[in-house]
Amino acid sequence: MCELLGMSANVPTDICFSFTGLIQRGGRTGPHRDGWGIAFYEGKGFRTFKDPAPSCQSKIAQLVQSYPIKSRAVISHIRQANRGSVCLENTHPFTRELWGRYWTFAHNGQLTGYETMETGHHRPVGQTDSELAFCWLLNQLEHRYPEPPVDMSEVFRFVTALCDQLREKGVFNMLLSDGEYVMSYCTNHLYWITRQAPFGHANLIDEDVEINFQEETTPEDVVSVIATQPLTGNENWQRMKPGEYGLFHFGKRIATNQAELSDVPFAAPRPGNQAPTEPLV
Amino acid sequence: MCELLGMSANVPTDICFSFTGLIQRGGRTGPHRDGWGIAFYEGKGFRTFKDPAPSCQSKIAQLVQSYPIKSRAVISHIRQANRGSVCLENTHPFTRELWGRYWTFAHNGQLTGYETMETGHHRPVGQTDSELAFCWLLNQLEHRYPEPPVDMSEVFRFVTALCDQLREKGVFNMLLSDGEYVMSYCTNHLYWITRQAPFGHANLIDEDVEINFQEETTPEDVVSVIATQPLTGNENWQRMKPGEYGLFHFGKRIATNQAELSDVPFAAPRPGNQAPTEPLV
Repeated sequence: MCELLGMSANVPTDICFSFTGLIQRGGRTGPHRDGWGIAFYEGKGFRTFKDPAPSCQSKIAQLVQSYPIKSRAVISHIRQANRGSVCLENTHPFTRELWGRYWTFAHNGQLTGYETMETGHHRPVGQTDSELAFCWLLNQLEHRYPEPPVDMSEVFRFVTALCDQLREKGVFNMLLSDGEYVMSYCTNHLYWITRQAPFGHANLIDEDVEINFQEETTPEDVVSVIATQPLTGNENWQRMKPGEYGLFHFGKRIATNQAELSDVPFAAPRPGNQAPTEPLV
Repeated sequence: MCELLGMSANVPTDICFSFTGLIQRGGRTGPHRDGWGIAFYEGKGFRTFKDPAPSCQSKIAQLVQSYPIKSRAVISHIRQANRGSVCLENTHPFTRELWGRYWTFAHNGQLTGYETMETGHHRPVGQTDSELAFCWLLNQLEHRYPEPPVDMSEVFRFVTALCDQLREKGVFNMLLSDGEYVMSYCTNHLYWITRQAPFGHANLIDEDVEINFQEETTPEDVVSVIATQPLTGNENWQRMKPGEYGLFHFGKRIATNQAELSDVPFAAPRPGNQAPTEPLV
């Protein structure tokens, strides 16, 4: 299995604190030694850092910690390989273009009977069930919406139905983002938390690090973090149920399962890439 | 305009020496202040580091120099923007999947009348003529070969014909790689050099750095470097002619323009990703 970490924020935010906790689980406090990766969106562009080496020993992971990059949408993953060898092309997250946006995907779990799923021209490069599932999702989305869709609420409803199908094939915990929305889907292990004013202190579980969010934020900041297991010991993480999904938009959780989706402000214009403040999570 | 740097090698090779020369031109010895990027292949996977900041000041560029990554195929670019604003999504190189391989592209030059070129479902994310030209190339390739082609000689002949069409729209100097082949196409400024035994010394033009390749290589190593302008002052760089292309396969230049292509060993099996030696170029 693997561990996932996602972030959605309303201002470009440094994920260094949470990432520091996560990477300890890549070989030190956890068994996920088979590589790690993190993708940060900046506007419509993204940066990805990846390494098939254990994150607790990775020099590139040290870099990510020491030169923090600020983003409103982040997806990260540490890997304990089941399907596919330990190599760069099998390391999550995976990013592909669809509808003129970059979509980023990471998966925790294991699927069976996935090999024959139709991916069309979205062909996997590596050998994982995860990348194949992502290619299948993209193929399904493109088949349903050959032109870029306007109503994203409809799109995410469709993604949820596709995730339900993948969950029938095994364990499928997922994070997916287009840089504006961050979506999480749970089969068994996924937690989330939204931090906003009044901000408090937090302590990492995996490393002796404490942070005072009040010193790092402004009262307007809203930041949500999604993780396979809670990263802090003194905060109230919400556990997602099997089949539950969450949709986050610039920090706020705007929908969970289908009933709520019709009430949320979808297809909002993309704000610019200004960085008025720089909180840490 | 911009500057390009490409490398093809028969063993995983550290491009640190050449990259050190290139990044000085990103704001210090050259005017290319509008971002930089570098993609390294490792097997079928790749890593990309990018920054819209000038390379001579970029902390991420310092990292790439201090944690050298070894690869057999590298494409790098420093940008002086003409089409498209200075931001991450407009920063080269661009990488997209086709036929289950990652293709990486960088362009130096400027095109006119490119806006209406048909890109199919390979939609640009940013606003550059370069990314649009890359999407058009991919669309043309996929239209001609809906299934992964076996005979790569035919594919590169077709790419050359497509490049000839792009050259009719302006200045089109290009580097393209699938991790196994590195292709260069010249409109006006592109040089190449192949280094092999007996290896000698080399001095960077843009920085006071000298290297003794003999100390860094084995007699079997073959490494080719392609650049917009020569990077060393004491070696014999070959200038490419307008409309000329070069095709490099694990260090060796195996073809230039169409006549030679039929004689070269295409569709060779991909070797594994072992690193017997680690030369620097």
